[in-house]
Amino acid sequence: MTKKNWERKLGNIIFESNTKTGKVFDVVLLMVIMMSVTLVVLESIPEINEKYGFGLRIAEWAITLIFTTEYILRIIVARNRSKYLFSFYGVIDLLAVIPTYLSVFLGGIQGLMVIRALRLLRVFTILKLTRYTRESKIIMVALMRSRYKISVFLFALLMIITIIGTLMYLIEGEKHGFTSIPVGIYWAIVTLTTVGYGDITPITDIGKFISAIVMILGYAIIVVPTGIFSAQIIQAARKHQDAYTCPECHEAGHDPDAGYCYKCGAEFIS
Amino acid sequence: MTKKNWERKLGNIIFESNTKTGKVFDVVLLMVIMMSVTLVVLESIPEINEKYGFGLRIAEWAITLIFTTEYILRIIVARNRSKYLFSFYGVIDLLAVIPTYLSVFLGGIQGLMVIRALRLLRVFTILKLTRYTRESKIIMVALMRSRYKISVFLFALLMIITIIGTLMYLIEGEKHGFTSIPVGIYWAIVTLTTVGYGDITPITDIGKFISAIVMILGYAIIVVPTGIFSAQIIQAARKHQDAYTCPECHEAGHDPDAGYCYKCGAEFIS
Amino acid sequence: MTKKNWERKLGNIIFESNTKTGKVFDVVLLMVIMMSVTLVVLESIPEINEKYGFGLRIAEWAITLIFTTEYILRIIVARNRSKYLFSFYGVIDLLAVIPTYLSVFLGGIQGLMVIRALRLLRVFTILKLTRYTRESKIIMVALMRSRYKISVFLFALLMIITIIGTLMYLIEGEKHGFTSIPVGIYWAIVTLTTVGYGDITPITDIGKFISAIVMILGYAIIVVPTGIFSAQIIQAARKHQDAYTCPECHEAGHDPDAGYCYKCGAEFIS
Amino acid sequence: MTKKNWERKLGNIIFESNTKTGKVFDVVLLMVIMMSVTLVVLESIPEINEKYGFGLRIAEWAITLIFTTEYILRIIVARNRSKYLFSFYGVIDLLAVIPTYLSVFLGGIQGLMVIRALRLLRVFTILKLTRYTRESKIIMVALMRSRYKISVFLFALLMIITIIGTLMYLIEGEKHGFTSIPVGIYWAIVTLTTVGYGDITPITDIGKFISAIVMILGYAIIVVPTGIFSAQIIQAARKHQDAYTCPECHEAGHDPDAGYCYKCGAEFIS
Repeated sequence: MTKKNWERKLGNIIFESNTKTGKVFDVVLLMVIMMSVTLVVLESIPEINEKYGFGLRIAEWAITLIFTTEYILRIIVARNRSKYLFSFYGVIDLLAVIPTYLSVFLGGIQGLMVIRALRLLRVFTILKLTRYTRESKIIMVALMRSRYKISVFLFALLMIITIIGTLMYLIEGEKHGFTSIPVGIYWAIVTLTTVGYGDITPITDIGKFISAIVMILGYAIIVVPTGIFSAQIIQAARKHQDAYTCPECHEAGHDPDAGYCYKCGAEFIS
Repeated sequence: MTKKNWERKLGNIIFESNTKTGKVFDVVLLMVIMMSVTLVVLESIPEINEKYGFGLRIAEWAITLIFTTEYILRIIVARNRSKYLFSFYGVIDLLAVIPTYLSVFLGGIQGLMVIRALRLLRVFTILKLTRYTRESKIIMVALMRSRYKISVFLFALLMIITIIGTLMYLIEGEKHGFTSIPVGIYWAIVTLTTVGYGDITPITDIGKFISAIVMILGYAIIVVPTGIFSAQIIQAARKHQDAYTCPECHEAGHDPDAGYCYKCGAEFIS
Repeated sequence: MTKKNWERKLGNIIFESNTKTGKVFDVVLLMVIMMSVTLVVLESIPEINEKYGFGLRIAEWAITLIFTTEYILRIIVARNRSKYLFSFYGVIDLLAVIPTYLSVFLGGIQGLMVIRALRLLRVFTILKLTRYTRESKIIMVALMRSRYKISVFLFALLMIITIIGTLMYLIEGEKHGFTSIPVGIYWAIVTLTTVGYGDITPITDIGKFISAIVMILGYAIIVVPTGIFSAQIIQAARKHQDAYTCPECHEAGHDPDAGYCYKCGAEFIS
Repeated sequence: MTKKNWERKLGNIIFESNTKTGKVFDVVLLMVIMMSVTLVVLESIPEINEKYGFGLRIAEWAITLIFTTEYILRIIVARNRSKYLFSFYGVIDLLAVIPTYLSVFLGGIQGLMVIRALRLLRVFTILKLTRYTRESKIIMVALMRSRYKISVFLFALLMIITIIGTLMYLIEGEKHGFTSIPVGIYWAIVTLTTVGYGDITPITDIGKFISAIVMILGYAIIVVPTGIFSAQIIQAARKHQDAYTCPECHEAGHDPDAGYCYKCGAEFIS
């Protein structure tokens, strides 16, 4: 289990971001990922693909090689190889390089390379050691605590949507674009969420009346999750704050950003 | 009024969910209900109905038989028969089986079977004894306490919508799609709730100007119910928390999820 | 200034709602107002007007006569006649009867009768003495306290909308429907408020890009007034609560609905 | 560095608003700015430009001369000339006069004059010394404190939008209007923000299904920034309030608007 020195050092740079080189590596990696996503996007535009197709292809291969090298290095220096290989990021790292190699044999799978966008999630591991932790912890706690309430809310919403969608299918019928219950449900979601494409709209008077009720419902109903989450985040913030007790004078209620106790002036070492 | 032993046992399984068998029964029932809703939805899609129509019809009858058996059992084992028969769930349980039997004599009422979606509401009786109770109680209290404020708000909204709808009917007129005041009101709701189908849009300059005001109004007005409900839910949560007093040391302000007093460590038996 | 007995009694019934007869009068009046609004709405529907035009006309005159009688009675029994005549409700009461009389000489002003909808505002004077007062006071205080912040917010919004509208007018031009800056501003409002009619949409790539930014801005910006108002309503509720001090034990923080002090049990006379 | 007396006086009028003349100057300036914006807007309307084009041109030159004079005066009396010239407002003041002069040599740049709308931002410097300061400080503090959380939120949103946009490009394809990934991203933004133009809508069943998920996501996701900002503004308001300590009795928690200590009655000099 003993590792060579350079392996440990490299592992630190690649997997951690508490050293300067580690941070630089992370930032460079993020930039390459963003470039790779931009490439996929540009390639999909017919005019640009026609003009600069060759250049884009070369850039794509260059980025694929960078990602492949990175992937192999990660495997070599990982403390626990199989754990990395089957971890969330390990799978994404692999999926990010496969499409290019496959495109040699199969055409038209360029679009799959957008999977590289998922690599952007790495930004969250990079933020791991910074001040985002405390703040995002509050959001996560609030979301976790709201999850039961919000799932009850979403379930009720889906039930309402199903009933409304069927009702409109029965009222408007195929003539007016409501060709099946799923289409009715699609319309109900478009209306309740206040998106309102206008690709399917009620024609009959009774249909318009029900639509109006659905719209007001959708407009009013948004307050429920907002209220739940707001209350939760306020509670989470308060609790988090209460947990900050000065090690010297035991005064509680310090600001998450505070560096010194506001009462006795003792420094906080975080 | 004395019941046979098996009746009491069966009643416990069907109506309660505090035993293991009772929980299994509830979960199986929920799954059957979801399947029945899925069936109705699938049947409404022309292509699927054409291909698998016969299979769907058989599945529908199977589910109807299951629901009928369940309904009869519920009547038999109910502690108070007439109370169950005329209760909310009793009526829905009946309505869920009738359409299939009627469809033998009458055609085209398949859609009515979506009433089975209402059976999904049973999920709330199943959640009755779980941790959802405390949390949903907070939401219900907040909704109950907000109901006066929100009804004042909705009434004011309807008044504004009526006035705006008529104004637009007078300004835009029949030429531009505002064929009557109800159509104008429909347009006002579509606009104020920010749905914006685009099936009826203002053409005249003054109409566009009024639309713009209505949109900003609709955009700004949402803060009122959100604020009301948020404040209410925070108050409800606080009060709920204050009500949690330790039976040993009488310390208040315990978390709704707390299992032990955070001060003296006494266990809470809920 | 001394009034005859019946005048004082009638004045009490018409202007106040603290007696039983006064309440009945208010409720009946509200129902007549709602009927009058319904009449105007029904008259605007071509099919209904054709069929039941004569009946509607008679009902309209009947309601106009009721309103006229009520208006005259109000003038007779008002404690301060000129104050009533030029008050907000006095003017609306007059405007509610004029259109019908004018329609004898002038045609096509039926729509003006929707002004009667404004009479619905009387509902708020009727609620004057009920429990709505305390609760609506909290909303009003919150709105009053938010008015500076929200007006700054609205001013900033209008400025942003003007700049965006002009930008889109310059970019998209008359060919794509942006025929003038006001049309551009109209489009910006439609987009920023997330209404999205789709009657004018960006065609150029740069226009679509700017639209996307405007949409995200509109989606994000709603949090500002919501947050302001929520915070304000919470503060207002807290202050209101603090103001409820028991006259016996001087304990503060009573619930607005409380009838007894929760500490010493003294009854509150409101 | 010594300035002549009239320069100091004029500088006070132009740059400050704590004197009566200074306030009058600010209000007049604001009105001229609003007029100049109105002019640009009117000029863009073809019918008005045709009829009153000559008058509008004269008014434009008049306002340009006023702005030029003001700009020159500001340079003369500025305490620190180069600081003003390169300040945010200094640059805008210059950009506000250039387009008119350039229009002598170049045509079709009238639209650029909307840059004058940016001069409306001066309203915030004018409000500098009024009661808006305290209140807007609370908003600013809340926004500053939310900026990390909200930027994390926006970054996650952009990532989701990119992935969804590509997915829809792959599913719907060019036939259904999704001609490239950027168009797919544009559609995703239109849908997620609940704007819903309807210029590009999903046609395939799987596309409609994904749209429905995106809509519900967009509808649900708005609670996150709202909750964050609400919580922040409540905290900011509370802290701000705590900071108001009476200089006499050291009682904290005074209202930002309070003029006297509510405990000992000492006057607050702000």
